[in-house]
Amino acid sequence: MILCDIGNTNASFFDGRRVWNLTIDEFMAYEPTEKIYYINVNDKAEQKLLNHLFIDISSYIKLNSTYIGLGIDRAAVCYAINNGLIVDAGSAITLDLMANGCHIGGFIIPGISTTLKSLQNISPRLNLPLNTNIDLDCLPQRTQDAISYGIIKPIVSLISDFSSQKTIYFTGGDGEFLSKFFSQAIYDRMLIFRGMQRAINENKEILC
Amino acid sequence: MILCDIGNTNASFFDGRRVWNLTIDEFMAYEPTEKIYYINVNDKAEQKLLNHLFIDISSYIKLNSTYIGLGIDRAAVCYAINNGLIVDAGSAITLDLMANGCHIGGFIIPGISTTLKSLQNISPRLNLPLNTNIDLDCLPQRTQDAISYGIIKPIVSLISDFSSQKTIYFTGGDGEFLSKFFSQAIYDRMLIFRGMQRAINENKEILC
Repeated sequence: MILCDIGNTNASFFDGRRVWNLTIDEFMAYEPTEKIYYINVNDKAEQKLLNHLFIDISSYIKLNSTYIGLGIDRAAVCYAINNGLIVDAGSAITLDLMANGCHIGGFIIPGISTTLKSLQNISPRLNLPLNTNIDLDCLPQRTQDAISYGIIKPIVSLISDFSSQKTIYFTGGDGEFLSKFFSQAIYDRMLIFRGMQRAINENKEILC
Repeated sequence: MILCDIGNTNASFFDGRRVWNLTIDEFMAYEPTEKIYYINVNDKAEQKLLNHLFIDISSYIKLNSTYIGLGIDRAAVCYAINNGLIVDAGSAITLDLMANGCHIGGFIIPGISTTLKSLQNISPRLNLPLNTNIDLDCLPQRTQDAISYGIIKPIVSLISDFSSQKTIYFTGGDGEFLSKFFSQAIYDRMLIFRGMQRAINENKEILC
């Protein structure tokens, strides 16, 4: 069984053993040879998904939530977890709170690379690389640190505020990096596929 | 006496009574008829400033700081204040801490409109206007609020963390909006000109 999560920049595949990525352009040229169970947030990919081997499982992700317009990728990640704060750190970072299988709410902030780029676009003087070893306990004393601190500190503070002793599940490209700032953190790059797999398991008689 | 602060997008003038702005393109076509005491962070404007009526006062802003490469606009704003947290909220937001006339350090985060644009660029689904009336005490339940919360909450939390009962001086385009989240806030759109004026007053015999 192959699962596929189609995002804004990549399509990620999982065959139960390994994960691999295609860019959206590569995905548009990809021809499936077996059933692909997918979720998609990218309007550009819709035409491609008319092939009958692509099976949309979004309606089987029955997340208990009052949130209006929750992206199906966020719903899938949350569907993998019963209790805790879920941080999906990609080009955007979503923070979602789950309690007893219910989605309590969440919000969206720009991701690390997105924020760095937005600062670089303001002025060539801010066109500096991220210092990933920044000490968050000291006020910065040079521009590179001022930017790095200004990117990482708000993210870490927000996560800290919302976790309040709950387990924090990190996923996404920057999930592993951010997880290192927290003792009660679990980094799980497969979270979205676990949520998708749960939806498929609950609907085996229809889907398989 | 006319003061001028040349930034990345605008040049702001102050004649002791009123403030007015020119875009950088307008500034490049502007011909001074009297002395203009300026600070500048925009490399594009350098050529224009060769006119002898433009007087660079940056070397007279003698801020006590160990920060390496502090922008002269940040230094000028800090030079106006002896004690407190200074938040200059424009396309970037700078936070700087002053204690007994010494600059303790500071950092840089993207501004409100910069962050909104960076989210909008990630996905058309995030292309939504800011909800400026967002309730920061409730977890968002729809995408527009999730974005608005994700933009405003980290800024307000950071400022709150760093102010710790100190007076917070807000300036810049979004300064007035952000100041409303704090009881110990002073909004002063003239802060940069107050710092520049202090430097001129301290060096009257040379400059005037």
